[in-house]
Amino acid sequence: MAVYTEVLDEDLEIFVDAYDIGRVLSCKGIAEGVENTNYLMQTDRAQYILTLYEKRVASEDLPFFLNLMEYLAEAGIPCPTPLHGRDGDALRTLCGRPAAIITFLHGMWPKRINAVHCSEVGAALARFHDAGAAFGMERPNALSLAAWRPLFEASQVRADDVRPGLTDLIAAELDYLEAHWPTDLPQGVCHADLFPDNVFFLGEELSGLIDFYFACNDFLVYDLAICLNAWCFERDNSFNVTKARRMLSAYRRERDVSDAEISALPTIARGAALRFLLTRLYDWLHQPEGAFVKPKDPLEYLTILQFHQGVSTPGEYGLD
Amino acid sequence: MAVYTEVLDEDLEIFVDAYDIGRVLSCKGIAEGVENTNYLMQTDRAQYILTLYEKRVASEDLPFFLNLMEYLAEAGIPCPTPLHGRDGDALRTLCGRPAAIITFLHGMWPKRINAVHCSEVGAALARFHDAGAAFGMERPNALSLAAWRPLFEASQVRADDVRPGLTDLIAAELDYLEAHWPTDLPQGVCHADLFPDNVFFLGEELSGLIDFYFACNDFLVYDLAICLNAWCFERDNSFNVTKARRMLSAYRRERDVSDAEISALPTIARGAALRFLLTRLYDWLHQPEGAFVKPKDPLEYLTILQFHQGVSTPGEYGLD
Repeated sequence: MAVYTEVLDEDLEIFVDAYDIGRVLSCKGIAEGVENTNYLMQTDRAQYILTLYEKRVASEDLPFFLNLMEYLAEAGIPCPTPLHGRDGDALRTLCGRPAAIITFLHGMWPKRINAVHCSEVGAALARFHDAGAAFGMERPNALSLAAWRPLFEASQVRADDVRPGLTDLIAAELDYLEAHWPTDLPQGVCHADLFPDNVFFLGEELSGLIDFYFACNDFLVYDLAICLNAWCFERDNSFNVTKARRMLSAYRRERDVSDAEISALPTIARGAALRFLLTRLYDWLHQPEGAFVKPKDPLEYLTILQFHQGVSTPGEYGLD
Repeated sequence: MAVYTEVLDEDLEIFVDAYDIGRVLSCKGIAEGVENTNYLMQTDRAQYILTLYEKRVASEDLPFFLNLMEYLAEAGIPCPTPLHGRDGDALRTLCGRPAAIITFLHGMWPKRINAVHCSEVGAALARFHDAGAAFGMERPNALSLAAWRPLFEASQVRADDVRPGLTDLIAAELDYLEAHWPTDLPQGVCHADLFPDNVFFLGEELSGLIDFYFACNDFLVYDLAICLNAWCFERDNSFNVTKARRMLSAYRRERDVSDAEISALPTIARGAALRFLLTRLYDWLHQPEGAFVKPKDPLEYLTILQFHQGVSTPGEYGLD
């Protein structure tokens, strides 16, 4: 939840005048997106999302994100798509920040996850991966294996304050993953942050995927592992094998998953857990003075990592 | 800005089923209202505001607020009005909190105030006061003269940490106001919190008044003084007499203001300034651990108070 930048009425009017979307009737800051400022804007024609990109999103990456959304939406993936101004540009400037107007998607993110949600997300992710195969741009994953050790070093000194023994545990896990991380799995465009608050449903039907601002190229099964971790653990951090089975089988119905990908899943899932453990740990230990965004608990992902450390075969994820 | 309570999908569905408003298509927490949780909810018929009343609003006052909104809306005041469920009830329960669905108003609150805004607000406040005259319920102002000394005592020990000399200044002002506060001015229903973020405009035309959760019975001119303080001082806290003239003359065109009210204005304006100085000072000194709402600067209202202390005749407010 965050509204970081307040937009003056006159500035908004000038900004919206560059589009052919009618007159603004309301514009309310919404509690969506932790990295950016988002407004739900209504004109006399339709509803839109107005996003101002704050400094945590690198502006040179924005064309990748916006083009990807447009590309996927055209390919039938239910996701928001940026509007183009009369001059053809989708990416503009508002209040000194890069800004865009994107289409508004109906639906609500599920607050209480059930197995049907997991199945829908698995299928949608596979379709996303298939659709992204022909996308012409690339963005390396800035939060993949190579980034984890520097991230760890930035938190290492105080990690044991969060949980005694955490430093040694992460150090050993890093050693393991650096030694065992696969190199030759199928790659493609990943969402890389498909948590429940980025997936909308109408009833039990998936109606939209949002927040493409971590999208990047990486192993497709890494994206699947991020989803598995985000959707298939209960609030008490216990693993729900029914949810996992539903997610994985729905994914495999839509996309041909290789044996190598299946075999790598336990290692990849450890990496996907470590990635969020490390970024949350960093954010936990580096809260800016006066920040009004509550950091997420890193230890939730410690439990998830430890679960995967105990997995000896992919069958334990409910795979047939 | 605040979303305090997260509503589960199933709970929302059951809640909305009590109304005849269609199917929910989206429901987003909005950065509006500091005291309550507000969602902008869209159904297949219209947009609504879903409000959950958090503990700072006394639930026994809610019938007053909701009935007042309904009464004023029927009298032609542009304000949200609560919806009634199929059973006739407007006030229900959601997530263990009192909750209501109210109509959605178009418009945006002005981020940069000009004299036209002040004129529009003055006229709207007068019409509000006239319309409220026949409203059948009463609610004493819990933040009037009698409340100020206890509020001060709760902050007194640390007031000088905020500004050296503040304790003595407030103590003297309290003595003055207790000795000089009028007793026989025209009373009626006041909004009592008509700050710019509670007034919507479409272009330069006022389109709505919102947030009635401080509404109460008090001197009407006290409500006008709250507006004067909230709208007619610049960001550097200098008094803008043009804005004040426009506000006061627009108000007087709509409502007959007595000579006694005009004469009392400098004293009343001091009281209206002290009220916000005291509540902001209290909130400043009593920030709950881990709170994510930034308290407002109390010293802004110290400057406003000091301005009014220097006023010797109401003519200094731009009155003819």
